[in-house]
Amino acid sequence: MATKGEMLYEGKAKKVYITDQADLYIVEYKDDATAFNGDKKGQITGKGQLNNAISTIFMEMLNERGIPTHFVEKLNDREQLVKKVEIILLEVVVRNVAAGSLAKRLGMPEGTVLPKTVVEFYYKDDSLGDPLINDSHIEVLELATPETVKQLEVYGRQINDILVDYMKQRNVILVDFKLEFGITPSGEVILADEISPDTCRFWDADTKEKLDKDRFRRDMGGVEEAYQEMLKRLGGVEV
Amino acid sequence: MATKGEMLYEGKAKKVYITDQADLYIVEYKDDATAFNGDKKGQITGKGQLNNAISTIFMEMLNERGIPTHFVEKLNDREQLVKKVEIILLEVVVRNVAAGSLAKRLGMPEGTVLPKTVVEFYYKDDSLGDPLINDSHIEVLELATPETVKQLEVYGRQINDILVDYMKQRNVILVDFKLEFGITPSGEVILADEISPDTCRFWDADTKEKLDKDRFRRDMGGVEEAYQEMLKRLGGVEV
Ligand SMILES: Nc1ncnc2c1ncn2[C@@H]1O[C@H](COP(=O)(O)OP(=O)(O)O)[C@@H](O)[C@H]1O
Ligand SMILES: Nc1ncnc2c1ncn2[C@@H]1O[C@H](COP(=O)(O)OP(=O)(O)O)[C@@H](O)[C@H]1O
Ligand SMILES: [Mg+2]
Ligand SMILES: [Mg+2]
Repeated sequence: MATKGEMLYEGKAKKVYITDQADLYIVEYKDDATAFNGDKKGQITGKGQLNNAISTIFMEMLNERGIPTHFVEKLNDREQLVKKVEIILLEVVVRNVAAGSLAKRLGMPEGTVLPKTVVEFYYKDDSLGDPLINDSHIEVLELATPETVKQLEVYGRQINDILVDYMKQRNVILVDFKLEFGITPSGEVILADEISPDTCRFWDADTKEKLDKDRFRRDMGGVEEAYQEMLKRLGGVEV
Repeated sequence: MATKGEMLYEGKAKKVYITDQADLYIVEYKDDATAFNGDKKGQITGKGQLNNAISTIFMEMLNERGIPTHFVEKLNDREQLVKKVEIILLEVVVRNVAAGSLAKRLGMPEGTVLPKTVVEFYYKDDSLGDPLINDSHIEVLELATPETVKQLEVYGRQINDILVDYMKQRNVILVDFKLEFGITPSGEVILADEISPDTCRFWDADTKEKLDKDRFRRDMGGVEEAYQEMLKRLGGVEV
């Protein structure tokens, strides 16, 4: 068992701690919620436990299906043991249905089913507002090699295929989601961060009801209930 | 000789007319100047003649060097005869030095020499503010096939190599520029639109003085003089 050491950094939704094992970190999930690049701030009661439980289910499932992830084990209500990585400063966004910034950018009504899967890279930089970037920007910023960028896109599409199918069986449409990857001390590119209603858009397949952070972003109410509902559909134990 | 027929459409900087020859158009250069997607409007005295003269020099030079362009001949002070194309709704932007929206997007001081050439595609749609898009957006919008997108990038880089060198000999730094391409009735992809101080950033190599539309965008004064200076450096006859 790894023992929790000093806090390494605190993000908007999680805290990361070193452990007594050089290649393992402990991630602690907070109830803090932010949107619009931190302009909107709040708390969602129980979110820490819920996202910890939900992300655990997704990461274990992806590990089983051969996607390398940082997930090692769930330690308790709020904490996970993960492999330490150097985070690649790219947010990989995969989209099946137009929503949010894509609907605005391309002038498509929200809910339009995309004829092809969209993969986007955003520069993970709060001070710049996480701008959309392309391959030549990534080269200039030296955020990743062209080979790694290719690999991130392949992983993004593979994970999308797995998740779309998995969610469909739970009567949920996977609209879009954001992934973060990292590089292990041995140089392997693996999936890191979290997969949760904070980082995905989930819509009920029948009612199109939103079961994700858009309820918080758009002041729709029922935020905690939506996260609880997602955990339930994933077969998790109520928290 | 082609005879001018009805006006087909009027853009922000030019008017396009049909002619009595099915595959030829006449383009008329206006003095109108716009910036920030039409939010800023004005006139630059003599701009029509200047850009007609400047674009003629660039297009003839590119034609000679094997880049297929729409340019056929300069008819008079304000008019050019061009090959009719269906414009591809992509603005191809090539950048050598950080300026304008790239400096903002990547958080780089304006003037930073880019370690690699940046090529960007923008969706040519005024109502959406010409947003930056990537390959998967282009596929979804069906703006061009992946093969055409590749070809546009190759042309963009080739034209950049030619223009950088050409401008350097005239003591001008080619900071960045925007290209539009079109498809001829026979299916060929060719360079269309214009190459002028409206669509390029030109800096004097010694003083870094701006010799382009940024003088208008940023209310710097000396706009017409800058366009005149560019024409002079290109060896054109004063207009
Ligand atoms: N396995 C890992 N190793 C190192 N850092 C990680 C790992 N997984 C996630 N992180 C990082 O932990 C930080 C905290 O997460 P979060 O609160 O979501 O941050 P942010 O405010 O950047 O969204 C983020 O920078 C995230 O990229
Ligand atoms: N060879 C050509 N055939 C057809 N259309 C062209 C050709 N060259 C340029 N155009 C188009 O002519 C229109 C007028 O030009 P401009 O005034 O610059 O328009 P905009 O307001 O779109 O910038 C633009 O839509 C441009 O794409
Ligand atoms: Mg985060
Ligand atoms: Mg134009």
